[in-house]
Amino acid sequence: MKHITSRDNAQYKDLKALATSSQARRKAGRTLLDGVHLCESWLQLRGLPEQCIVSDSGLLNPEIAALVRELEAQHGHCLQLPDALYEALSQVEHGVGMMFLVPTPERAAPAALSVNAVLLDNVQDPGNLGSILRSAAAAGISQIFCSPGTAFCWSPKVLRAAMGAHFVLDIFENVPLAPLLQDAPIATLATSGYAKQKLYDVDLKGPVAWVFGHEGQGVSDALLALARHRVVIPHLGQVESLNVAACAAVCFFEQVRQNLA
Amino acid sequence: MKHITSRDNAQYKDLKALATSSQARRKAGRTLLDGVHLCESWLQLRGLPEQCIVSDSGLLNPEIAALVRELEAQHGHCLQLPDALYEALSQVEHGVGMMFLVPTPERAAPAALSVNAVLLDNVQDPGNLGSILRSAAAAGISQIFCSPGTAFCWSPKVLRAAMGAHFVLDIFENVPLAPLLQDAPIATLATSGYAKQKLYDVDLKGPVAWVFGHEGQGVSDALLALARHRVVIPHLGQVESLNVAACAAVCFFEQVRQNLA
Repeated sequence: MKHITSRDNAQYKDLKALATSSQARRKAGRTLLDGVHLCESWLQLRGLPEQCIVSDSGLLNPEIAALVRELEAQHGHCLQLPDALYEALSQVEHGVGMMFLVPTPERAAPAALSVNAVLLDNVQDPGNLGSILRSAAAAGISQIFCSPGTAFCWSPKVLRAAMGAHFVLDIFENVPLAPLLQDAPIATLATSGYAKQKLYDVDLKGPVAWVFGHEGQGVSDALLALARHRVVIPHLGQVESLNVAACAAVCFFEQVRQNLA
Repeated sequence: MKHITSRDNAQYKDLKALATSSQARRKAGRTLLDGVHLCESWLQLRGLPEQCIVSDSGLLNPEIAALVRELEAQHGHCLQLPDALYEALSQVEHGVGMMFLVPTPERAAPAALSVNAVLLDNVQDPGNLGSILRSAAAAGISQIFCSPGTAFCWSPKVLRAAMGAHFVLDIFENVPLAPLLQDAPIATLATSGYAKQKLYDVDLKGPVAWVFGHEGQGVSDALLALARHRVVIPHLGQVESLNVAACAAVCFFEQVRQNLA
């Protein structure tokens, strides 16, 4: 197994850039999966990583040591780092000392909507974005389209919040959303506190594309106008809006409920 | 209006402790509400703050200047700080320069469940906790019971994520949850990926107490066993679990849907 012990090593510097800069991740088309859960999901759903990075302490964990032995036997791309160097790469506070370097899939978005999808218009918070991906994957939704202003999906924070959902979804980033909504061949729904139609009164049994927006401003007026349905989640309390990830979960699982009924 | 310009001022040091330490907040029974939205919600729902704290730049904002004039006319407890001192108190990145010092209500928890409620067992993440409070308030749920291991509800991060939900809820912290579930006079539901009964098959029209647990481990086995119903949110995808705040939103709004139907 390869060892790096100097912060000035060129390969280590590249990893440090990936760990700390969205721009570097976008440019390299690569990201870091931090923690055993994400790494195991990747192995199961996508195959081998480009590299497996472990800390000295991480290797003392029998689960990690076994996984590293197996990876070494298969292609040998493992890298061992002293704890101090490893910790400068990791954003997980009490991490276990293992991460994967993996390519971030970059595919051309389909020209038209055809299956269950989520369109994200300027969603900013990595925790919200990750939670939306996780809920979408659990609800059987397969495509995610992100507007140019939406946070980068393959950042460590989003990956951590999504708990492996990335690996079962088709995620398309930097996609202008208006052309997808214009004359969409499937139902398109945007939530709005001002809408008159209730979520529960719309037939969600066919394929649906959901539109969610910025945490503060919601879905832009232009996109709201292009959606076939504007729907409200009826509230019973004095607080009149939901967190965008909570809102998305309610919508996705209303669709699941209708499809199971 | 009072001015403080030194970091060594005793009153400023007290504010700094409140801004940075959950322990100090618990001990003082006070917290800071950061930003115009939270401050206005407090004014509307709870009345005057103990103190209004503004930055030099904040006072240049006409909306804030007007609010401060009004508060000064009513009781005069405003404090102006240079930007550098203010920013050391604020956790909002591009904040507007206004916060309230307010008491955190400390009430004895009722001995038994009687109305719609949420029981939180070791929920750790402030963003999740705030989102759950916000969804609960929007769904018309009135009582929140937090186990001793659950994050402190009145921290700036939880307050920000809950967007004012705190001010319409009755929040009881450090409450042992098992006695509340034992022989509860209302329906008690805990979600579990291993449960057989589907959420959608339970009658949620009467008062319900929901139990949600730790982000990684879920609801403890002891509490699961005490709940009248263990329910699963059916999934259609390969990802088999939801973020706890997403899960709570799905549950709360299934109850809203049934009550509206």
